Amino acid sequence: MDTLDILRQLAIIIIAAKLFGLLARKLKAPQVVGEIVAGLLLGPSLFNWVSQSDFITGLAEIGVIMLMFSAGLETNINQLKKTGIKATAIACSGVFVPLVAGTLLYLGYYRITNPDPEQLLHAVFMGSIITATSVSITVQALKEMGKLTTEVGTAILSAAIIDDVIGIIVLTVVLSFRNPDSSVGMVVLKTVAFFAIVVILGYLVYRILKILDAKYPHTRRIPIIGLALAFGLSYVADKYFGVADITGAYVAGVIMSSLDDSEYIDRKMDVNSYMIFGPVFFASIGLQTNVHTLDTGVLLFSLCFVLVGLLSKIVGCGSISRLCGFKGKECLIVGCGMMTRGEVALIISQKGLAVGLLESKYFTSVILLIVFSSILTPIILKVLFGDEKTSKNEQKKVTT
Amino acid sequence: MDTLDILRQLAIIIIAAKLFGLLARKLKAPQVVGEIVAGLLLGPSLFNWVSQSDFITGLAEIGVIMLMFSAGLETNINQLKKTGIKATAIACSGVFVPLVAGTLLYLGYYRITNPDPEQLLHAVFMGSIITATSVSITVQALKEMGKLTTEVGTAILSAAIIDDVIGIIVLTVVLSFRNPDSSVGMVVLKTVAFFAIVVILGYLVYRILKILDAKYPHTRRIPIIGLALAFGLSYVADKYFGVADITGAYVAGVIMSSLDDSEYIDRKMDVNSYMIFGPVFFASIGLQTNVHTLDTGVLLFSLCFVLVGLLSKIVGCGSISRLCGFKGKECLIVGCGMMTRGEVALIISQKGLAVGLLESKYFTSVILLIVFSSILTPIILKVLFGDEKTSKNEQKKVTT
Repeated sequence: MDTLDILRQLAIIIIAAKLFGLLARKLKAPQVVGEIVAGLLLGPSLFNWVSQSDFITGLAEIGVIMLMFSAGLETNINQLKKTGIKATAIACSGVFVPLVAGTLLYLGYYRITNPDPEQLLHAVFMGSIITATSVSITVQALKEMGKLTTEVGTAILSAAIIDDVIGIIVLTVVLSFRNPDSSVGMVVLKTVAFFAIVVILGYLVYRILKILDAKYPHTRRIPIIGLALAFGLSYVADKYFGVADITGAYVAGVIMSSLDDSEYIDRKMDVNSYMIFGPVFFASIGLQTNVHTLDTGVLLFSLCFVLVGLLSKIVGCGSISRLCGFKGKECLIVGCGMMTRGEVALIISQKGLAVGLLESKYFTSVILLIVFSSILTPIILKVLFGDEKTSKNEQKKVTT
Repeated sequence: MDTLDILRQLAIIIIAAKLFGLLARKLKAPQVVGEIVAGLLLGPSLFNWVSQSDFITGLAEIGVIMLMFSAGLETNINQLKKTGIKATAIACSGVFVPLVAGTLLYLGYYRITNPDPEQLLHAVFMGSIITATSVSITVQALKEMGKLTTEVGTAILSAAIIDDVIGIIVLTVVLSFRNPDSSVGMVVLKTVAFFAIVVILGYLVYRILKILDAKYPHTRRIPIIGLALAFGLSYVADKYFGVADITGAYVAGVIMSSLDDSEYIDRKMDVNSYMIFGPVFFASIGLQTNVHTLDTGVLLFSLCFVLVGLLSKIVGCGSISRLCGFKGKECLIVGCGMMTRGEVALIISQKGLAVGLLESKYFTSVILLIVFSSILTPIILKVLFGDEKTSKNEQKKVTT
């Protein structure tokens, strides 16, 4: 592809992604869904104006690294330390139940009773896609209702952070098994080695960066070092430890998340993400989806996938909340608050496609899960909180 | 090249470019020179850690478009209208003299007495490289001395803006002749048609954007539209009018330069430029330069090139300043203030390489011109203004 064509394709992708992103927001759906739809329309499904070239794939890959680095940056380690046993329990159950449910769905749907290792890996991967919560929509809904700082709100927020960390570990382990020369022992060893080295070296890097940041606050070099660290650690993770590159990027973000300038770095990363790399990544998901190859089989699977995705989080997070002392409706609120999915589910899917653990047709399932969860959650939360108010009022009436 | 290797190369390029950029600034040289040196060291000249792959070339191309779009954005049309006949005259002469001098240098150095059209085009291209002034270093030097708002300072600033516009027209015409099926009449017709259409459509686009910008000031969509316009116009210019893509990007910037949010757009573009695309572009210049292929011939040529580059601006701008009523030293100040070269000279060279009008070995000449002019100008200006003060004091002594 010549450079001239790159310019044409980028112009089209950027403007279409923005347009449909805004349209999606108008319709109360997440912007990324609009950007995916833009890719869908521009690609082989309809107009065929843009092709999924090597260059676009490369840009999308950089976009993924940036998004995961940002996710890491937004992990507040100090808050993580403070969050109690409750949030940790909710997060663990909120990862475990969907992971198992997704695996069983795959095995059940395709009636695989005696899976070989390859089939099992595909099944577990399907499960790990639905482990990743994306609470930005929940946060916004809670904020609007003024419920963000309630006990339930705090539990959801903290659980979502821990959920990310556990999710990335699960994903790391699952993807490690993809390595052709992998033995279980080797995979575990390498993964443990990676995290051990990252904790030690990461702390050293963090101390050095802290000094640098104090000396040169708000200078360009700080976000530049961050980006280089993200790229570098992604490479090292994948190349030398067989750990997914996105894990490396996420860890780089976590390392820098306690710097005074972490927000400043995140803002600069964000400009890069929303101008080019983000839209290209999300549009490329659409570009890789050809609606003509969708059959009723995939659609039926998607329907089950969405149901399992939503219910497994509600059951996983809701049931454990009950054990943690939350009451009736509150458990449902925690469960529904945790059921939204977003960018990370797409990033994981893309990774799965790259390593051959997922077929591109399943993108449809993931996109539908994102759409449904994002639209349903705010509505359900509103209803539940509305009910709660009434029941409290009723309680008051009884007691007074 | 697999995506993993992209991450490795980007990590190395970004961090090395920043490091050497900072080092260059410490040594009072322009940062871009440091970034080029970083590329030089990483490439075939020394370590061979990074190769000039298609992907890197694509990123560099995007970087060039962004830089030219920024240059256009910084063109203040209103100031352009106000600048008088003096600045226009200085700019015209400051483009014409170097253009001719560079052409003659090429023909003279290679003893071409009867050039065929191809040789002539190469020669004229050598001239057009040295037409582009980059006054950022001059501006900084004048600012430090408190001389920016003097008559001389204003003349330099205004002339540099017009210089850019004339330079881009010259370049457009020269590059148009590169087209295989080009006749002089066709080239002129297409170029005129491009600018005519751009003026009319550009004004329409500007009016629409002005309304959009007033309605949604400081929103993400504004810089995104800008970037898409830059990519789109670059494509259209090259594809349908045979006009250089960088001209299209520059024009897109000019169209948006009168928006209230033009500075906001420029800031957002700047983040993209300095984080990834800028360093990759400048480093890629270094990557394409192999010092092992440099012979004394090229070095000798470079020496002449630097001399001609510096002197032609001093003569071109200085002599016409004299006619415009500036006195002795002032003319020299205008000439030396206009002799600095920077990014644009590199962008033009890169374009020349892409269309086969320049061999990569001449990058050395251009880089040396940038280094020498950037280091010499502030020193000379200081000396000249120092002298001026003394001579004025002496004059005072005489008159009082």
